[in-house]
Amino acid sequence: MADKLIIFDTTLRDGEQSPGASMTREEKVRIAKQLEKLRVDVIEAGFAAASNGDFESVRAIAAAVRDASVCSLSRANDRDIARAAEALRGAARPRIHTFIATSALHMEKKLRMTPDQVFEQARLAVRFARQHSDDIEFSPEDGSRSDPDFLCRVIEAVIREGATTINVADTVGYAMPEQYGEFIRMLRERIPNSDRAVWSVHCHDDLGLAVANSLAGIKIGGARQVECTINALGERAGNCSLEEVVMAVRTRKDYFGLEVGIDATQIVPASRLVSGITGFVVQPNKAIVGANAFAHASGIHQDGVLKARQTYEIMQAEDVGWSANRIVLGKLSGRNAFKQRLSELGIELDSEQALNDAFARFKELADRKSEIFDEDIHALVSGDHVDAGEGYYRFVALSQRSETGERPQARVVFAEGDSEIIASGEGNGPVDATVRAIESHVGSQAELLLFSVNAITTGTESQGEVTMRLSKAGRIVNGVGADPDIVVAAAKAYLAALNKLHATVERVYAQAPQ
Amino acid sequence: MADKLIIFDTTLRDGEQSPGASMTREEKVRIAKQLEKLRVDVIEAGFAAASNGDFESVRAIAAAVRDASVCSLSRANDRDIARAAEALRGAARPRIHTFIATSALHMEKKLRMTPDQVFEQARLAVRFARQHSDDIEFSPEDGSRSDPDFLCRVIEAVIREGATTINVADTVGYAMPEQYGEFIRMLRERIPNSDRAVWSVHCHDDLGLAVANSLAGIKIGGARQVECTINALGERAGNCSLEEVVMAVRTRKDYFGLEVGIDATQIVPASRLVSGITGFVVQPNKAIVGANAFAHASGIHQDGVLKARQTYEIMQAEDVGWSANRIVLGKLSGRNAFKQRLSELGIELDSEQALNDAFARFKELADRKSEIFDEDIHALVSGDHVDAGEGYYRFVALSQRSETGERPQARVVFAEGDSEIIASGEGNGPVDATVRAIESHVGSQAELLLFSVNAITTGTESQGEVTMRLSKAGRIVNGVGADPDIVVAAAKAYLAALNKLHATVERVYAQAPQ
Repeated sequence: MADKLIIFDTTLRDGEQSPGASMTREEKVRIAKQLEKLRVDVIEAGFAAASNGDFESVRAIAAAVRDASVCSLSRANDRDIARAAEALRGAARPRIHTFIATSALHMEKKLRMTPDQVFEQARLAVRFARQHSDDIEFSPEDGSRSDPDFLCRVIEAVIREGATTINVADTVGYAMPEQYGEFIRMLRERIPNSDRAVWSVHCHDDLGLAVANSLAGIKIGGARQVECTINALGERAGNCSLEEVVMAVRTRKDYFGLEVGIDATQIVPASRLVSGITGFVVQPNKAIVGANAFAHASGIHQDGVLKARQTYEIMQAEDVGWSANRIVLGKLSGRNAFKQRLSELGIELDSEQALNDAFARFKELADRKSEIFDEDIHALVSGDHVDAGEGYYRFVALSQRSETGERPQARVVFAEGDSEIIASGEGNGPVDATVRAIESHVGSQAELLLFSVNAITTGTESQGEVTMRLSKAGRIVNGVGADPDIVVAAAKAYLAALNKLHATVERVYAQAPQ
Repeated sequence: MADKLIIFDTTLRDGEQSPGASMTREEKVRIAKQLEKLRVDVIEAGFAAASNGDFESVRAIAAAVRDASVCSLSRANDRDIARAAEALRGAARPRIHTFIATSALHMEKKLRMTPDQVFEQARLAVRFARQHSDDIEFSPEDGSRSDPDFLCRVIEAVIREGATTINVADTVGYAMPEQYGEFIRMLRERIPNSDRAVWSVHCHDDLGLAVANSLAGIKIGGARQVECTINALGERAGNCSLEEVVMAVRTRKDYFGLEVGIDATQIVPASRLVSGITGFVVQPNKAIVGANAFAHASGIHQDGVLKARQTYEIMQAEDVGWSANRIVLGKLSGRNAFKQRLSELGIELDSEQALNDAFARFKELADRKSEIFDEDIHALVSGDHVDAGEGYYRFVALSQRSETGERPQARVVFAEGDSEIIASGEGNGPVDATVRAIESHVGSQAELLLFSVNAITTGTESQGEVTMRLSKAGRIVNGVGADPDIVVAAAKAYLAALNKLHATVERVYAQAPQ
């Protein structure tokens, strides 16, 4: 039997660290459920000690997920590790992932610690973590730029203390595939107890090499766990893309000789879900999950591809979950059909009331849009916190008009806490007027960093999904709103973003992502 | 002195082959000018024999570009090569690039030719091409899956006939870096006259490895030309990304020991220009040119990055042309300032009339938007064919309104040839109503595949740039429209797309892209 490659997804931790990609607890649970359907082996659910919100998210995911291991990141100190362990208490398979930087640069400039201090702290952290779980991952941050002798010493010690996975991070995306693979092979050969741990790769894409470096770590270095994210989400240029690394190992099984447990048909649904929740678009020419990934220019299609599929196709679109949009529900669908579809999509609403609210919105949408697709249902539920009674700001109604030669006007009705506000504004366009109307009352003075709209399905009848990214006092939040009327979707997105700004979040960032 | 790596850009040929990325001649010339500012060594301008439009585009670029070599693709037959040579007649440095498939699969299933026939055709094609230029590139299509013995025989023969560049294509993105690099090394070692040609790599990104494969071809295989595109545009998952491969070679000069002639500060402007013209968005977590590529989550920013820049940054954002949006022009800017800025941006308008029209639109925009950025100017000119008197359909005016509980309405005034049309429509939202209004008269029945909006600069006062991708009878076209009013931008985009559908295009596709 072939070796198995462990798929460790960190969309909810490293992915969420991207500026603008922060998610609510409910959104994280929804993604975790999809990751479980995708059959990833390990879900890194967050960094429990970062904030109460992060702690609660890890705890909620630990409770919701049964098949996959659930992991929390923690710095190499007792407090972080104890928080991680507490958050993971309900997990079927808890993993604690602790890290400390081992490169000279990071130890000196960031940690301001000597190598001996780092060595000692790493050892003690793993020893402490083992009191809470048998499944302990240790990451030497900036590992690929660390001194080999020192790194060997640290890793040997943490394995002796009971670390079961060793994750060699290329934190800044500086490695070249062959060098990175040889580096891991060297570590494995030199460290006497290296066979007592699973070796793992964690690569960043700053030079576009995250997937290649991960694969070299696997092929040359012998790593058997890969850390990756849906859509390559992550700090800066992102992490290794789950979809690419999985399909490379699977398509080139002749070369890698490895098994992966992933249900690849869940890849595209997972990609869409993450893109919809974070508002991070997937470019059309992105491998595997981009809209064009399996599309050929028509002339060629008629020739080469039709003559023999494998002339241009090394994978089939269906294998990774591309299929035509299916009409799943319509105007006449009842509450039970809706409820069942939600459950098939892995969407679980907290209460009967939430279900009733969602169903009411569904009926309202079905009145305006004849064909309701899965994407519409996801959007319907994503908008919950704005549409339904959850957020501090809730959308109620909007009217707007624009005419060439006149200044566009908007009138927005929205709830703020218990009050209903009616606000008017003018602007360069109806969206600008709408935002100015809301701002005339709220006065957040947040800066709009990004405004983007994507149709959820094809056709102009489709709902538009608007993402607005706001920045205020160093915090960056994303609001997403969906509606067949793009101006209404924009109003919802803006209110959703204001809700996130309104929620006081006190998050302690890790000193560094690894 | 270090070896030089030749940067061969194929955004205008392989990039344009992406469904939906087709460009007008004017757009191609604008991109070619930017590629020249970027100092690429070779610009593949198109495939002259594909259609009259392609021929004219290659010819226009050949005339407009002075510093870079200009190249046309051609199949390995005399007619294609003669067309390429004719289109390139005005070029300062013309290159003819001819290709034929050499893998058993492609020869049998697609070409229906024997290996001996392919060998003979390749040889004769290069011989014929040499009569027209001294700079001849030959590509064995699907080279990485070809039989090595046969491939050696073909390449040796074409070099003997005078091919000066040999481009080994990984047409379907199936190669693994080490294998691909070794494959090229093997070819160079076995072919007796291999040192008389420059070796080149051309990789596709279906498994996310285009950059890594290209780099392995360079490092292991000894290739000294890389074929790439801006934003990794290209068939399916796209080609090797110019920005990534250039910055990898430059950032890791210690590893590659190669010089590249690129002016990296023109990378981000080039990325934005291509994205704006094609409507293909760049995802935020795209390396180098993504909006987040150099952004850190705030908490970390305050710690590691501030303590020592190189802890997390291996490149500087400024190096690749990221800089704050600059206010370049405003309400009070005169015609000369506008003209000069156009020229600095490499935008050349055909006539005084075109300049006057663009200036009038600029003044109109400046009345509505206080700060005008470079991106706004690009958008202003991109919209030329719809705003100005060029296209068959031209936007004139629009009024629209929507109100919660009522059905949105739009009234669009547009020119169709010499007539002015006033059309009204209702829809799910103002954009839907606008499209229905136009369709009520035009009746194109095209299918809307994609609708996306991006703010051109930050802030709600920004112009929205709308992309609409339509499909009709197997043809896919993109329309782009910009306006501070998103509904107007959508109307312009729709009319722009209708113009492209209206223009009769008879394009002969290559039997295959390589």
